[in-house]
Parts: sequence; C-alpha cells; structure tokens
Amino acid sequence: MALKLYGLPMSSYTTRVMTCLHEKAVDFEFVPVNLFTCEHKEPPFLAKNPFGLIPVLEDGDLTLFESRAINSYVAHKYKDSGTDLLRLSDIKEAAAVGVWMEVESQQFNPAITPIIYEFFVAPISGKTPDQAIIDASAEKLGKVLDIYEARLSSTKYLAGDSYTLADLHHLPYTFYLMKTPWASLIESRPHVKAWWEDISSRPAFKKVAEGMKFGEE
Amino acid sequence: MALKLYGLPMSSYTTRVMTCLHEKAVDFEFVPVNLFTCEHKEPPFLAKNPFGLIPVLEDGDLTLFESRAINSYVAHKYKDSGTDLLRLSDIKEAAAVGVWMEVESQQFNPAITPIIYEFFVAPISGKTPDQAIIDASAEKLGKVLDIYEARLSSTKYLAGDSYTLADLHHLPYTFYLMKTPWASLIESRPHVKAWWEDISSRPAFKKVAEGMKFGEE
Ligand SMILES: N[C@@H](CCC(=O)N[C@@H](CS)C(=O)NCC(=O)O)C(=O)O
Ligand SMILES: N[C@@H](CCC(=O)N[C@@H](CS)C(=O)NCC(=O)O)C(=O)O
Repeated sequence: MALKLYGLPMSSYTTRVMTCLHEKAVDFEFVPVNLFTCEHKEPPFLAKNPFGLIPVLEDGDLTLFESRAINSYVAHKYKDSGTDLLRLSDIKEAAAVGVWMEVESQQFNPAITPIIYEFFVAPISGKTPDQAIIDASAEKLGKVLDIYEARLSSTKYLAGDSYTLADLHHLPYTFYLMKTPWASLIESRPHVKAWWEDISSRPAFKKVAEGMKFGEE
Repeated sequence: MALKLYGLPMSSYTTRVMTCLHEKAVDFEFVPVNLFTCEHKEPPFLAKNPFGLIPVLEDGDLTLFESRAINSYVAHKYKDSGTDLLRLSDIKEAAAVGVWMEVESQQFNPAITPIIYEFFVAPISGKTPDQAIIDASAEKLGKVLDIYEARLSSTKYLAGDSYTLADLHHLPYTFYLMKTPWASLIESRPHVKAWWEDISSRPAFKKVAEGMKFGEE
C-alpha cells in the first residue's frame, strides 16, 4: 500500500516532506487538505494529528505528523533507496546529521519564520507587516548564517561532504526568503550562496518548487 | 575514554543531557562552563560549539552540541545499556518516539520557554516580567497540554507504554514551571499530572534535579 501524504503543495512543511519522498524515490499518494474550509480542525483530520496541522503521513495503520519526524522516519525506513539522507553507516557522520538537523530546528527556523510570516502571511490576513519584528529576525538570521558561512567554507554541506536531511530541511523557508528583499542575507555570503544554489537545484526539490506559489497573484 | 559533558548543573539544556546519560548508565566527566565570565563566547569553547551555547558533548574526537541531538546520539550509541529510550526494535514505536520528540521541540518548548524566561531570567537581568507574554504563552501551553491530557488518557507515556526520550525531554522546563504559579497548568490535568509525577520521580532525574537551583536564593 502506498504512503499517503496529507497537505498542500504550497505549504512549507508539506513540501519539506514531498522533497524527502522524491529524494528517496518513494511513491506516495497526495491528499490535499482544504485549510480554507478548516478541514484540518475537524474531527476526521484531528484524529490523524491532534494539533490540527499539515502535513500528516500515513503508512498503512501508522499515522505520523511533524514534518521533521516524518522525514526521519522515511529516511530510516527507506535507507537503501534513493539518496542516503542520514549517513547511518558512519556513526560520526550520522551524529553530525543529527546535530545540524537540530540547528535548523532550534536556530535557523526561529530566526527565519517571523520574516516569512510578516512578509507573506500578515498581508493576506489584512495586517501590516511589523518592520521591527522583521528587522530583529533578520539580524538573528544573519548571525546564524555567519556560522553557516564558516561551516560551509570547510565542508560542502552542513553535516559534511554529502547532501543530507540537515540541508533538505532548510529548503522551503529559504525558497520563500529568496523572493523577499532579505534574499541578500543568503546572497551576501559566498559559501551560503553556493550551498543554496546547489541544494535548490536538485531535481527532487525543483519538482516541488513548481507548486510553491504562496504570495504570488 | 569517558564522555565529556560541558555545561552547568542548573541549566535546563545541560540537565536534559545529564538525565539521559544517567538513564543509559553511561559514565561521563562533567566540565563546568563559566557563563558569567562568558567562557562560552571565547574561541576555545566556540571551537566546540560555534553557537556558543551549552551543553556540548565530546566523545573522543567527536564533538556534539544541541541537547536533543546529543541525547539521540547517546541513546543510539548505548542502545543496549540502561533504559531503552528509543524503542528501536519496533519501527512503529520508534516512529512514535520521533513524532513526540518533535512535538516537545515544536509545540511544547515554544509555549513554555517564554514563561520560564519571564519568570526566572527577566528578574535577574533587571527586567520586569512581561505579563502579557506570560499570559499568551500560558494559553498556548494550556492548549498543548489539553492534547497531552487526551493522549495520556490512552497511553501511559507520550510515545506509548514505555518511558522514552520523548518524555525525558520535557523534564527540565517542566521542573522549573512547577516552581511558578503556572504549575496549575500541569496540576489541573489529571493524566498530565500523573505522568509528571511518574517521570519526575525517576532516580536518573532526581539526582539531576538536586542541582537545579535556578531562581533560588
Ligand atoms: N512543526 C510542524 C508545523 C506544521 C505547520 O505549522 N503547518 C501549517 C501549514 S505550513 C498548518 O497546518 N497551518 C494551519 C493552521 O495553523 O491552522 C511541522 O513541522 O509539521
Ligand atoms: N537548543 C539548544 C539551546 C542551548 C541553550 O540555550 N543553552 C543556554 C543555557 S541553558 C546557554 O548556553 N545560554 C548562554 C547564552 O545564551 O549566552 C540546546 O538544546 O542545546
């Protein structure tokens, strides 16, 4: 039975999982969730994810939520298919993947999220973007990216010489950031810029990026 | 060679790792880091963790940071010693551990952190706790705990019938929360309360809790 992914093609967290599934060359059925009618806050969806958030992945009678947890599951279960996203055969490399996945989650994500939110989400909710929040977040993100710049001057990817989940998890929000004036945070750092050009041009992500039309007319 | 843990006994993130090491019955050397002299922002420490944060774990020539990544590494490396914190022998249980670890990281932690910060950290930094931030966070945390309450009425622990890293990661901040007026968020939910009493009375954590004197005179 094929995996079932519930989500939306323009949602960052959904595309994070889609990109992983494509890298692993795993077939899946895509089930769109209508956020506008609040389908995700109704009992049938809440039975899958009590937090009422997309994405959700079903694998037979196993139901998973939280995009990073879903990707770790997929990368473990299909470890011998497609791209090796966890480097499990080398305990040190696998440990570095774990560390840099956490860096995305704890350092990068909290800094970039408010920029994406204020720039894309606030306007469609009828709010004026809060420039003070954007400025503070851009400063925080710049500091995180300074550390990435140093790291990526000695290794090609965040966890070492191979592309892994640690890099992949950065794709959706950075893709949206590149459509804002704060793209300069990436472009002004040569190693970060080269890394971004590399990871965003992988076929698995390019396929997904076509559907990422959030903020377009 | 023994593992080396750099940190402070009252730091939440350090005690998260210490608790895991005790559960796994793994010996380690504790190396205190002097945050007050900003030792963690000096080159020797930054070479271990470029983000300048404790804890850091050294295992021979491998250096790890980010408490959750460290714990996953320890629980994988010593999977046959002490408490089974990942349930790797059952792919479904292991997947549930992954999901609920992410719930702590993405839902619980962002809601509880501002309460701990405003209550304990703001005053020692000479600031008045911001009641509006506390109230908004308490409301958010309450919603997360409502979902925990439902979950824990059908399983004894977050990921199933066994105590795992998903539970353990909640210990330090909840321990500090219980010293504030917002302890009622835990106490008013019977299954959450029973879960808290269970996980906080495990010997591995009790040993660590003795050093958690943040906010005491
Ligand atoms: N930490 C979650 C976040 C998921 C999330 O925030 N999903 C958004 C869409 S990108 C959502 O479902 N929003 C609907 C809502 O908040 O009502 C994950 O990584 O899966
Ligand atoms: N996400 C990190 C957070 C670590 C962290 O914030 N550590 C605090 C102490 S509990 C720290 O080093 N603070 C010093 C500072 O910010 O200068 C982890 O899980 O390890």
